[in-house]
Amino acid sequence: MSKKILIVGTMAYDAIETPYNKVSRILGGSCPYIALAASKFSNECSIISVIGKDFQDKDLKILKKSKINCDGIKKDVQSNTFFWSGRYSEDMNSRITLETKLNVLEKFNPTISKINSKPEILIIGNLDPKIQLDILNQIKSRPKFILLDTMNIWIQNFRNILEKIIPNVDLLSLNDEEARLLSGENSLLKAAEKIFKMGIKYLIIKKGEHGCMFFSKNKLFIIPSYPTKKTKDPTGAGDTFAGGIAGFLANQNIVNFKTIKQSILYGTILASFTVESFGIQSLLDVTKFDINERLNHFKSLTSLNGD
Amino acid sequence: MSKKILIVGTMAYDAIETPYNKVSRILGGSCPYIALAASKFSNECSIISVIGKDFQDKDLKILKKSKINCDGIKKDVQSNTFFWSGRYSEDMNSRITLETKLNVLEKFNPTISKINSKPEILIIGNLDPKIQLDILNQIKSRPKFILLDTMNIWIQNFRNILEKIIPNVDLLSLNDEEARLLSGENSLLKAAEKIFKMGIKYLIIKKGEHGCMFFSKNKLFIIPSYPTKKTKDPTGAGDTFAGGIAGFLANQNIVNFKTIKQSILYGTILASFTVESFGIQSLLDVTKFDINERLNHFKSLTSLNGD
Repeated sequence: MSKKILIVGTMAYDAIETPYNKVSRILGGSCPYIALAASKFSNECSIISVIGKDFQDKDLKILKKSKINCDGIKKDVQSNTFFWSGRYSEDMNSRITLETKLNVLEKFNPTISKINSKPEILIIGNLDPKIQLDILNQIKSRPKFILLDTMNIWIQNFRNILEKIIPNVDLLSLNDEEARLLSGENSLLKAAEKIFKMGIKYLIIKKGEHGCMFFSKNKLFIIPSYPTKKTKDPTGAGDTFAGGIAGFLANQNIVNFKTIKQSILYGTILASFTVESFGIQSLLDVTKFDINERLNHFKSLTSLNGD
Repeated sequence: MSKKILIVGTMAYDAIETPYNKVSRILGGSCPYIALAASKFSNECSIISVIGKDFQDKDLKILKKSKINCDGIKKDVQSNTFFWSGRYSEDMNSRITLETKLNVLEKFNPTISKINSKPEILIIGNLDPKIQLDILNQIKSRPKFILLDTMNIWIQNFRNILEKIIPNVDLLSLNDEEARLLSGENSLLKAAEKIFKMGIKYLIIKKGEHGCMFFSKNKLFIIPSYPTKKTKDPTGAGDTFAGGIAGFLANQNIVNFKTIKQSILYGTILASFTVESFGIQSLLDVTKFDINERLNHFKSLTSLNGD
């Protein structure tokens, strides 16, 4: 039986422009991506988040259909769902935020019910560090594995709180820009060294289409991303990646460098599906067969020995 | 016995600024990097290039000491050696050219002597495509392997000549920006597809610190770069990479996808040494033992299976 996974993060509606297309309102936020990715491995995923009065039932049904427990998604009828709008560059390696409406997130004050307070795997998505700390404080017994995400604005404005959280989680997931910002170092190897001094156990530095680096204090694993020519929308790739890691680890007896490394492979493959459609669509469509087929292909693309 | 390698390209003096340091005049150009990297594997490297009246004997001696044949380096006393000056960005992933003085390159008209006209491996470094075509025409018997380099200004201004050269070489080496420019495609997979329609057999797309992609018409190999925290000057990394490929292949009976893949491993490792010093310094210092030690480390960093 797989371990219980608790996901705390955002539910959103996104407006996205890429060189490929433009959509004005699709389901987004970290939770749907993390949960759908994790649900490929586990039927024990629960979400803690908040939605607004405009949130459509059909969007909840999509998650429930994937056996994701949505009881922890609070509806706040005083406001609308968190809204984000962004535009990607021509090569899709960078994006600008056009608009952010926090809406219900402004007063988001998650309460973790008794039934959810003892997860074995906890994913704390990108949120205000004050909320992230509050979540950690509500957890009744130390999960086997805690993954933390954050972003530039929190690093810039709430570094002191982040520095309190970091020693209490297992894996911190950052992109290269965030790792440089958090550490003040340009070299990613040096950045990692500095971040380990903050008391983290494992660190992932994501490099978008260039893959990622996974560090423990004394070990390093480097992996490219799976190349796809069908990239339509990179939104949610990082969250999908985290969800794949959590889902895979939920089925492992031991969480260590080796099993996290394996989980990163699955995260990488799942993220490659996510970018092939707008929003969560391909994550909904992809089957276990597709995932394993692409994983095998990926292994052959990166094998140093084969023909 | 290793195969005869002929290297045609530039000899230069470089002025380089990186966040780490600043030098005003050091030996550069494609030939020293290519030849020194290739000479780690082969004592049969010859250079075809041109130097000016300001070129210092000690710099030729450095190459000769590494058993590189410099008889094909013409001295043109009418002008000075090609001079390039550039500044790297804070993260060293991009650079701007501050000054280019072609000097002796303006009238460079390489003549390949009879003894050099039958190389088994030919590296045509980044040069005006008219000169590259001229070189191909002077080669008396088809080498077993021809590697071609180029850059944005030639793609922009002499595409028609490049398109004549490309079907006559085996491996084209481009960076990601150049591949996008040559193909008109943003996706590197699509870019490769288009470039194969120009009649190339093998293609490498270099992504700087993010490694490279190696394509045949039906196969793909993806490899990260070797991460180093001591990056001081990225100049010459691409040429070192090409030289490593050529040198390794000079000792192989067969040149095919598998052996080129192996050669790319060595090119990757050699390039990681080059960036650790200004100019050619660490390429001079590095021993076979250092190379193999780092290669083994690299294998462990990228292994999907190990602990």
